[in-house]
Formats: sequence, C-alpha cells, structure tokens
Amino acid sequence: MSQKLTVLLVIFSLHSLVALASDPDPVQDFCIPNPTYGAIRTASFTILPCKNSSEATTDDFIYSGMKIPGKFSETGLATIPVNPTNFPGLNTLGMSFVRADLKTGAINPPHFHPRATEITYIVQGSVYSGFVDSNNRVYARVLEKGEAMVFPRGLVHFQMNVGDKAATVFGSFNSQNPGNQKIPTAIFGSGIDEELLEKAFGLSSKQIGTMKRRFDPKKV
Amino acid sequence: MSQKLTVLLVIFSLHSLVALASDPDPVQDFCIPNPTYGAIRTASFTILPCKNSSEATTDDFIYSGMKIPGKFSETGLATIPVNPTNFPGLNTLGMSFVRADLKTGAINPPHFHPRATEITYIVQGSVYSGFVDSNNRVYARVLEKGEAMVFPRGLVHFQMNVGDKAATVFGSFNSQNPGNQKIPTAIFGSGIDEELLEKAFGLSSKQIGTMKRRFDPKKV
Amino acid sequence: MSQKLTVLLVIFSLHSLVALASDPDPVQDFCIPNPTYGAIRTASFTILPCKNSSEATTDDFIYSGMKIPGKFSETGLATIPVNPTNFPGLNTLGMSFVRADLKTGAINPPHFHPRATEITYIVQGSVYSGFVDSNNRVYARVLEKGEAMVFPRGLVHFQMNVGDKAATVFGSFNSQNPGNQKIPTAIFGSGIDEELLEKAFGLSSKQIGTMKRRFDPKKV
Amino acid sequence: MSQKLTVLLVIFSLHSLVALASDPDPVQDFCIPNPTYGAIRTASFTILPCKNSSEATTDDFIYSGMKIPGKFSETGLATIPVNPTNFPGLNTLGMSFVRADLKTGAINPPHFHPRATEITYIVQGSVYSGFVDSNNRVYARVLEKGEAMVFPRGLVHFQMNVGDKAATVFGSFNSQNPGNQKIPTAIFGSGIDEELLEKAFGLSSKQIGTMKRRFDPKKV
Amino acid sequence: MSQKLTVLLVIFSLHSLVALASDPDPVQDFCIPNPTYGAIRTASFTILPCKNSSEATTDDFIYSGMKIPGKFSETGLATIPVNPTNFPGLNTLGMSFVRADLKTGAINPPHFHPRATEITYIVQGSVYSGFVDSNNRVYARVLEKGEAMVFPRGLVHFQMNVGDKAATVFGSFNSQNPGNQKIPTAIFGSGIDEELLEKAFGLSSKQIGTMKRRFDPKKV
Amino acid sequence: MSQKLTVLLVIFSLHSLVALASDPDPVQDFCIPNPTYGAIRTASFTILPCKNSSEATTDDFIYSGMKIPGKFSETGLATIPVNPTNFPGLNTLGMSFVRADLKTGAINPPHFHPRATEITYIVQGSVYSGFVDSNNRVYARVLEKGEAMVFPRGLVHFQMNVGDKAATVFGSFNSQNPGNQKIPTAIFGSGIDEELLEKAFGLSSKQIGTMKRRFDPKKV
Repeated sequence: MSQKLTVLLVIFSLHSLVALASDPDPVQDFCIPNPTYGAIRTASFTILPCKNSSEATTDDFIYSGMKIPGKFSETGLATIPVNPTNFPGLNTLGMSFVRADLKTGAINPPHFHPRATEITYIVQGSVYSGFVDSNNRVYARVLEKGEAMVFPRGLVHFQMNVGDKAATVFGSFNSQNPGNQKIPTAIFGSGIDEELLEKAFGLSSKQIGTMKRRFDPKKV
Repeated sequence: MSQKLTVLLVIFSLHSLVALASDPDPVQDFCIPNPTYGAIRTASFTILPCKNSSEATTDDFIYSGMKIPGKFSETGLATIPVNPTNFPGLNTLGMSFVRADLKTGAINPPHFHPRATEITYIVQGSVYSGFVDSNNRVYARVLEKGEAMVFPRGLVHFQMNVGDKAATVFGSFNSQNPGNQKIPTAIFGSGIDEELLEKAFGLSSKQIGTMKRRFDPKKV
Repeated sequence: MSQKLTVLLVIFSLHSLVALASDPDPVQDFCIPNPTYGAIRTASFTILPCKNSSEATTDDFIYSGMKIPGKFSETGLATIPVNPTNFPGLNTLGMSFVRADLKTGAINPPHFHPRATEITYIVQGSVYSGFVDSNNRVYARVLEKGEAMVFPRGLVHFQMNVGDKAATVFGSFNSQNPGNQKIPTAIFGSGIDEELLEKAFGLSSKQIGTMKRRFDPKKV
Repeated sequence: MSQKLTVLLVIFSLHSLVALASDPDPVQDFCIPNPTYGAIRTASFTILPCKNSSEATTDDFIYSGMKIPGKFSETGLATIPVNPTNFPGLNTLGMSFVRADLKTGAINPPHFHPRATEITYIVQGSVYSGFVDSNNRVYARVLEKGEAMVFPRGLVHFQMNVGDKAATVFGSFNSQNPGNQKIPTAIFGSGIDEELLEKAFGLSSKQIGTMKRRFDPKKV
Repeated sequence: MSQKLTVLLVIFSLHSLVALASDPDPVQDFCIPNPTYGAIRTASFTILPCKNSSEATTDDFIYSGMKIPGKFSETGLATIPVNPTNFPGLNTLGMSFVRADLKTGAINPPHFHPRATEITYIVQGSVYSGFVDSNNRVYARVLEKGEAMVFPRGLVHFQMNVGDKAATVFGSFNSQNPGNQKIPTAIFGSGIDEELLEKAFGLSSKQIGTMKRRFDPKKV
Repeated sequence: MSQKLTVLLVIFSLHSLVALASDPDPVQDFCIPNPTYGAIRTASFTILPCKNSSEATTDDFIYSGMKIPGKFSETGLATIPVNPTNFPGLNTLGMSFVRADLKTGAINPPHFHPRATEITYIVQGSVYSGFVDSNNRVYARVLEKGEAMVFPRGLVHFQMNVGDKAATVFGSFNSQNPGNQKIPTAIFGSGIDEELLEKAFGLSSKQIGTMKRRFDPKKV
C-alpha cells in the first residue's frame, strides 16, 4: 500500500472523527483542533483533530473575526457563522454562534436549523423577527435594540430589517453544528421532481420552472 | 380557592408533565397513560398521566388501529400517526410511527420532522421518495415494495406515488413526538409578513396573495 | 516504524471511531461510511470511516436487500438485521431495523436488546408476541397482520408463528446498534460456571450438561 | 367533582412525575423528594415530589441503612438496593447503588440491568463474577477483596461466593433506576407460553412444567 | 383531607415538575409557563406549569428586560440572568442567557456554572476574561468590543473591566438553568468546617475568621 | 510527506478519538483500548484505540490496582483514580471510580468534578464530608464506616478524616472522565491576575502573593 493511500486513510479517519462526534456532554475540558493540519485541509474536508491539551493557547478560546460585518450578499445580508471550523475552542462544547447584518429592507429568508435552538439578540436596529410552529401559527413582531427572541429547535424562522439604518444581530446555538436549511433554495433549487412541486404548491409547470431558474444553485 | 380552580391546577399540572418530558433514556420499564383521565381531556389538552405499572395490560403495548388506511384527503393522502396519544405503550420510550397511504399520483408534500430521524418501509406500491441536505442537494428515486429509505433528522423530505395502484408506507421515528412542519402551509398559510415572502421567493404581491389564499388554514 | 504498522494503526483508528460513537444527536446531516475501505475490512473489523458529504449518493440512503426473506435456520427463523454495516445511510442517525420471517410454528427465542426499544409491525401472518417486565409479568398475545407491538428498551421479549402460513415482521430500533442477547445461548452456551447454573435454575449437574451441549456455540 | 377524586388526580400526577423523568443532565443542583407525602404513599405508588431546595437537609444526601447486611434469602443472598425511594438525595442525579452479601456458596443468579452499567467493588470475600457479551462470550473469574469489575450496560451477569466466609459487594450504577431482570424468574416464572419455552430450550413439556413450578411467583 | 392540603399538594406537584425536567431534546415545539399561576407563586417556589400551545403569544418568545443595565452591586457589577423564570419561552429549550455590566475596575469574581458551557460576547468595553482548566492552567487576556470567548462547561472563570468606561457583556448558556457557584462565597461564606479551610488554604484560624466574616451571607 | 508525519497524524487521530467521545449511551457492548499502542503513548497523549471485541479478555474488565492505598502526599491524602487510562474496560461505559485514603487529620480540599455526580462509600474510618449548593448552603457531617454520601454534579465538596485511625473511601462517578478542579490550586496556583484576586477575596497584594507562592504549581 502506498504512502499516499496511507495518508488518505488518515485524512478520512480524521474526517470521520468529526462526523461521529455528538453534541452531548464532553468527556474532557475541551478539544482544540490542531492547526498543524491546515495544510492538508481541502475545500471538501472538515478535518478537526485535537491538540494535546497542554498546547492549547488562550487565543484558541477567543474569536476576534466579527468586529465588523461580513461580506454582504446582493440582497443586503451578511452573516459570519462561527463554529469549530473558524473558532477552535468551540469543538465538543455544544455551542456555536453567528453575527448577522442586514441593510435597510434586507431579509434573512425563512430557514431552520435541524440541530439547535437559537437565541437572537438585537445589537442594533429594528428587525421584524419570527418563527412558525408545528401547527402553522406564526409568532412574529419587530424587535428593537437590546431585545432577544428564541427560535425553538428545528422550527422555520425569518428576519427583515424594517428600520432606516443597518441592523446587527448576534445569534447563539446549542449545537456546535446547528445546520441551516434555507426554504426557497432547499425546495426550488435542489432538484426535487417538478410534478411533485407543482402538486405541493399548486403552481403550473411554467411557474415551477421560473422558481427553479431563480434558485438554481449555479446562479445563486 | 375554589374546588374548580384546584381541578384546573391539576389539569395543567398533568398537562405540563408531558410538556417537560424528554426523549432520552427512560428511568422505568414503561409509563402507560391512565385511561381514567379521558373524561377530563379536552380538544386542547394532551394529558398523559401514568398508570401504576401493575395495572398495565398487554393491550397497552399493542396498536391495532392501522390495519386499513386512514381517511384520505382530497389530494389522495391518508396518514395514521401513532404516538402516545393513541398508543399508550409508546410513552417515554423514544419512538413513534405512522402508516401513510397514497392514491395513484398523490403526494406527501415537502415537510420535515424537527425532532426525529425517520425510516420508511414500502409495504406496497412504487413511491418516488427523497430528501434535501443542508447543501441543497436532493437524494431521491423511486422505491419499490420491500425497500426502505432513511430521512435524517430535521431534513426536508417528500413522497409521490408514481405507480398505477395505491401505495402503503410504514414510517418509524426515534422520538415519541417527532413534530411535522409542512413547508407549503408553514410558509404560505401561517401569516408571515407578505413583503418578506415576496423578497424571499421573488414573487409579486399578487402571486403571494394567491399562495396565501391557497394555503389559508381556514380553508385547508 | 514500518508502513505496515502504520496502516494497522490507521485500521484500528478507524475501528475505534465506531466504537466511540454514541447514539445521541448527530452534529452533521449524515455520515456515510466510505466504500473505498472495503478492501481493508476483515471478518473481525467493523470499519466505518465516512465519505465527504458531497460524495454521498441517493443509494447510500436506501436499503434494497430485504425484499425476500433471509436464510432460514433449521428452526424456521430467518432474520435480516439492517444497520450501518449493510445500510451506510443509517450511520450516526440513531436508528436501525430488521426483517424477520418465521415458518409455521417457528419461534424467535427469548432475547433482549441492551441498547434500544423495538417496534414490531406484522407485515403478514399471526404471531404470538410478548415481553416480560422487571416485575416478571408477561405481556403477550397473538398479533395479526397490520398490528404493531412495542418492546421497551432492554426487556426480554419473544415471538412464535402460531398461524398456518409463513409470517413476516418488520422491526425498528432507536439505536444504530441495539445489540441482541439470546437467553438460551447466553446462559447455557457461553461457559458460565456449572455450579452457578445448577443453583440458579435448580437443575442437576447432568441436566446442565445436557443444556450446555445443546447450546454449545461450536454446534449452534 | 369530589375532593377525593381531586386528591387521586394529584396522586397520579405526582406518580407520573417520576415516570416521565429521565436520567440525563439535571437542570437544578438536586431534587429531594418531600417526606410530607409519606402518608399518601401506598404499596403500589412511587410518589417522589420534591422539597423546596431551602428545606433540604444534610441527611437527605447521606445513606446510613447499609452498615449491616440486608435480610438473607433462603439461598443465602441479601441485597439492599439504594435509590431515590430510600435515599432521597439521589433523585435526578443519575446514580444509585446496592450492598449485596452472599453466604458461603450463595449465588446472585444471572440477571441484567436494562438501564445501567454497574461497577462492583469487593468489600470482603472471594466472589466468582462475570458477564456474557452479545456474542455469547463469558468474561468471568474469582475476584478478591479490593478488586473491582465492570458489567457493561444491559449485559447478563452473575456472582457466586466461592470463599469460605461471607462476602460483601458494593455495586454502583449510572442510572437512578437501573432495573433488574433475573433470568430464571423472568423466563420460567412470568407466564411465557409453554410451547415457546419448550422450543426455545429444547425441554419437554414436563420439564418446563417443573421449571414453572420452581419459579412460580406465588412461591418465590 | 382539607382543600388547603389539596392545594399544597398541587403546588408541590407543579414544583417538582420543573425539578424533574432535563435539558436534552424537547418532545414538543415549546412549553410556555402559564402566567395564571403567578398568584400562587412564592419566594420559595419555582412553579412553571405550561400553557396550552394554542395560548402561547409572540411575546412569550421575546425578552425585553435587558435594554439597560441591571442594578449595580457595591462592587460595580450588574447582572440580569435570563431564564424560564423571567423569559417563559426558554422553558425546555436548553438555553438561557445573561447581560452583565461592569463599571470601570469592577470584577465578576471567579465562579463556574455546573451545568453549562458559556459564550460571552463583548457588547462594549475592554474586559480581562479567562478560565482555568483541570490542570490549573489559566487562559486569559483582555477582550475588546466585538470579541467573544468560550468558557467550557463547569470550569472556573472570571472577568474584570480594565477599560476606562463601563463594559457590557452578553453571555449565553446551553442549559436553561446553568447554575452558578461563586468561589469566594461558596468557600468562605457557606459554613465549611474552619479546620478544613485552614488546612486547605494554609491560613491561620484568625485569617479564616476574617474571610468568613467578609463573606458572611447575612452581610453579603 | 514523511512516514514520521504520517505516524504523527495517526497519533493525533487516535488522540482525538477519545477527545470527541461522549458519555451517553454506548453503541456497542464495550470498547477495550488496545495495549499494542502502549509503546507510542507518551506523557502528553491519552491514546485509547479499541481492540477487536473478540480479543477482549476477562482481565480487561477487572481492576486489581487498589487493594492497598496509593502514594500518600505530604498532607496525608492518597488517591487512586480509576478510569479508562488504567482500567480499559471502563472505556465508553460512562463510569469511573476512585479509592481515597486519608491519614488522621488529613483533608481532601474543596474541589468539584465538572462532568459527574459522585457517590462516596466509607470503607473504614470517620470522615467529615460535605458539599456546597448554588445558594452557598453547606451540607456536611461526619460519616462513619458503611455510610454513603452523594455529591451532585459540579458542586464543590470536601472531606477530612476526623477519626483516630486511617480512613478509606470508595467513590464512583457517572462519567468516564469526571474532571477535577481543586479550588485552592485552581484559584491561587493558576496565574489569575492578582488585582482580580485581591478584589475577589478582599486580600492585600502581599496576602495574594503569599497564596500564589503557596500554591505555585512548580512547588505543589
């Protein structure tokens, strides 16, 4: 067996380490991913082996990359998701967080996190915020600076900046990888059978075609 | 304090018992809801106090109500969800299940279960089945009798009977109350702000209005 | 250190990945074991490293191997246990399942699953089914096609086909590896000290000897 | 509704409180069952409502009832199981324990705990101890004073005093209610169908009858 | 039995409801404590029965009470802990949070949360922040506005405003009731035996006496 | 890439295996760390890959290393912590234990375990034992031989031998790695900023200096 294959095996081994980890109680104080492995990380791998605890540093437990907003999309939304891939200290501790900035009128479209409850805290601005429960009831209103809202685990929620200046939101999750399923893209941009979508939404074949082009992942 | 209030307090007490329970490991063999309380149960309460274990009967652990399909909707879908409210023995054991029947061409629209993974087993028929992952990739194909598919926890999935006869599916969940959020109704029938929906889906105010009427909970 | 040892280290590493995984909430959508590693898998290893999620395919989430019964034992029982070793998509999702077929009069002897509750659904036939609780009470009766029974986590249960044709049962579990301890073999075929068994069951040395020969693993 | 029924409702409410609790992380420091309710406790109820934390006392967290052996059975085994029903402080904390004493030659017959791993520590004596794994392999040998053995969750295990004086064992569990299923009684004393038992153990109808009389719960 | 006792029973019943709940996965969308019960709540009870889900309101999921700092202590620290007792929507969802304000030079003394990891986000100011791991290594430095630090579950941590203006910190926890054990008060103000404290800290009887008076709970 | 780096990758891979494991329900009977890897283990690594289950031996599940007290410290305390690093069979099973011996007058200073509840059983001697709850109330008294006390998860506790002979305590935990934070060393020996400590404890700079020298890790 070649050395190259050996290394690949190791890489997959490391990869699956993360895949098999779970969010419940850790069995050690912490587990800092080892920066040495940055070089062998690729776009398609999420490799998070751990440092020996004596090599952990203070900066492993501090995140400094969200002092300013992230890169805004065309629609005026900028998010900086913070989890073990960019904040090592979170690994195995069952939490992660996000900074979201919305320009005036911008929205965070209906989405949900399959594996976490979210608490959002309005750092600045006026943000229409809400979620929908299993009985299709919506709970929504405009939040002002200093207010907080909870989005229960796995339920669809959304936000829109209804103020006249930029808004900033700090959200925290009780999973190190909450996941995010954005409804418009997941439904119309993923390739679900067109006939099924027509029947599900009561739309014509032409209308579904329009929606599919709009959320085509090659374009979005 | 009146007796009536006392009883109400008790009712709420019982109610919240269920609300606070969680799906992890039980601390007893089982916990059969007590049928005595049927009388004080109302449409809006889910009251599940437990029997003394010595009063449990064999039939508490057997469900006989899905030998034939449930009541079909106008669109040709019939589901019989089975959980502790209709099958007492499931209470606290972390599982529930469902029988779904689809007439030819009928669909089970895109939906997800916030609190469970689902395994579906095709009892009869040909069913196009699939789910969408967090990266908006769809995993779907037609399943035949005897095949099974897994829908990972919290991810959007869907089904359509593509055969020329009725189809029957048996689904099981690893939560006693998996929850169910149906995308078309949750998004367009729940009362989310219209401007936000227009921006999220790129639809006109008129189109959104049509969708909202289509999924109006008073009509659906 | 030789390359061979390196590879062995990797194998053990992969092996223990599975061993250390737990059934609670996953921290990713799914984790498909990588088929590349089939070559280094041996009879004694259960190696389940994961694919990069972008390489997962629809078939990873579908199981097609139980359309017909498994291989029948001499006593008329055929089981097809389905878990991550033969259905990759189940890995880390906390569920597994089984198809069991029993010829007329055949039994599934008293056994229990240390790590899961089981829901059994009678696909066809008449099956005497039951379990025993911690107070030594039995809950059992004949189930007909379309009925379901729940066996609470860790309690002894059993089945016998009492109909006049073959029976088929579909069972699902809330663990990806529920385990299975068959009482007759575990007690009499495992090598427990004979004096202890004589005292535990009130049997003579000769009777225990007969039982031990009957359930000798070299013969069974 | 009468006051009597109201009180009964409350009793059932309290009863089910315990039934729905689970072993995972507590959400408070502790939860001491309230002694006030001793009066309404009956043989068939396990009622464990909690004290206000400010009323907890030091003695709620200390157990003094196992300084001497419990009552010996005819076969020479005495056990004192300690859990929230006799040691209030354990409630909700996910642990319980047991003192077992065995006269010379006495056994603790094959049994298992559906909901806990057990660690046994030999306080005095020589005790043959062991368990059987899912592959029917037995792990057993004589333990001496000061040695400890672990019995993994849900696996059949057993003990026999092979020394020439009394033995004392201290066992601890990672569940506040581990459960206990004793194989001989669960199998032969619970009322499982005789034909199934004959087939399962290869015994004659007469032999099964003898076993059933031996482990008849009315006599045991 | 008198009505009064009946009511007391109910109150204890409700009380213990909360006590037995655990932080893992909820089995319903949410569980809003019912405001009706405010009247029977007393200083010593934490009664959180749930509303029928159809009676939940948007404001149940929004917290508006931390737009300005809480009441400052003599030492310059003001905290607003937010959990299900003041923010109903958090109940059963496994999260809670806190706003802390520190005047120039003020400290948040060494403390730990027995049941949660904490993420702190600096809303404004310069705050020396840190924690100690199980090997007695400290991880600490000054955080500026916009930075975040994670304090792993159960480890001692602390903060001090080292800037020249007030500081504001937003902390979130992955438990609805993380608990808080403040070291100086827990050790010196709780009544631990003096001889033990002298030996533990190497202090004289007089020095321990001084410490005990300083942290006497009647004065603090 | 060199072979050496490959091996290092493997080592880190194995290391992180443990780091990512969690205490909840195992998904196999057991997972015995493989002794083969002893050679590559170093002071700073905790490498616990698993044996193939067929290679597990009886002795993997038995611990014989605490028949006599451990090595006493200068202050008269000897502890033998037993966990997967010295008792392989515990791995993944969610429990560990400790033997502690205290000479007359010796103490086990105030400390807590971030990840476990502890049950202590007095094997011999008279031991003043107690813990402090979140409200700074102490629960403590002298325990005699045969008594047991529970220390709830994450709360500060302590012990002192107040008898006239040596005392022996057997403690068990519901985590395979409970962690241990000793208050005097964690606070004064870890390097927390002196000004913060002065303010937290009301001590002078000189007094803090004395404490820091006393608990300097280079000396302790």
